[in-house]
Amino acid sequence: MRSPLDHLIRQLSSLPGLGPRSARRVAIHLLTNRDKLMQPLAEALSNAARDINPCPQCGNLDSQTPCYICRDSGRNSNSLCIVAHVSDLWAIERTRAYNGYYHVLGGLLSALDGRGPDELGIPRLVERISNGTYQEIILALNATVDGQSTAHYISDMLRPYNIDLSRLSHGLPMGGELDYLDEGTISMALSARSKLNNN
Amino acid sequence: MRSPLDHLIRQLSSLPGLGPRSARRVAIHLLTNRDKLMQPLAEALSNAARDINPCPQCGNLDSQTPCYICRDSGRNSNSLCIVAHVSDLWAIERTRAYNGYYHVLGGLLSALDGRGPDELGIPRLVERISNGTYQEIILALNATVDGQSTAHYISDMLRPYNIDLSRLSHGLPMGGELDYLDEGTISMALSARSKLNNN
Repeated sequence: MRSPLDHLIRQLSSLPGLGPRSARRVAIHLLTNRDKLMQPLAEALSNAARDINPCPQCGNLDSQTPCYICRDSGRNSNSLCIVAHVSDLWAIERTRAYNGYYHVLGGLLSALDGRGPDELGIPRLVERISNGTYQEIILALNATVDGQSTAHYISDMLRPYNIDLSRLSHGLPMGGELDYLDEGTISMALSARSKLNNN
Repeated sequence: MRSPLDHLIRQLSSLPGLGPRSARRVAIHLLTNRDKLMQPLAEALSNAARDINPCPQCGNLDSQTPCYICRDSGRNSNSLCIVAHVSDLWAIERTRAYNGYYHVLGGLLSALDGRGPDELGIPRLVERISNGTYQEIILALNATVDGQSTAHYISDMLRPYNIDLSRLSHGLPMGGELDYLDEGTISMALSARSKLNNN
């Protein structure tokens, strides 16, 4: 193994989910499918690096500014959904269950990683909300310690604004079997149980 | 999600080991590390596609022809190791336990996939061996049905040449625990057991 190949493998192995072994496999796969895969991938990367940028309004990634969601006037302008990452936004969009606008924080508050409210642009978010016409804010953050403390912090900051605040429900995942779920999820699902009869 | 981004994600998800979900994660990771990761990766891909080619002699991938192994005159020119894939060659090189030359078949005989001796260039391999000075041929093929039938076929073809033929040993992998190994491996290790005393 020598320089351009080694270099490519090192580049590939820095991608999330690819270790040195899978990076080698990918490199060989690309080199044996040069015209069909490798050149098109190189072009797709350069084009995307040039054309795709974070939306200055919501933080979504798109080739136009503002992004296709912020430009979509058919959405419910009263509703704002706050997510940590662009991938979370995409995950919610795939459900087709939400029709409002988004705000991507770019991470979660984390004392360990030294990420505070300013790093996440929370002052900017509060400003966006105070200037907007939002009647409902949905905090769609992970059910983790960082996610929940971020949700808590944001809900504190938004208390003065008299807007409906909600968070995603916690409980059993779809298809979840009790026997395979952790105690935390089960006890949470128990304490947040919902009534079935209306006595 | 729109066109250049979708296109990039589709390209990434065609790589081995990456599904749609991990391709999305990789795309976001690249787009948030544009200068440090994305542009260098695009360049590494174009450069490698342009510069790296299969060695006409052994089939290894390198930026020079013949490859760095075939050019290395310090190796044992009496020994040839036959492997199915370039990744197998690299795996053997990583052991530093072999100092001869290689021949990459580019696959294994497979009736199901319609891969016969001609597709694997076995006539060319036989010619290479009959023109060479090899005293030992090592068949370093997978311990699978296809690997072993390919080894069998090649050893048949090489019978006229009066060259030492060997294959990799089969048995317990390093660190293997009997309780976790399949019956096939254990029974193979049993029947190929080696003596410890020299009575």
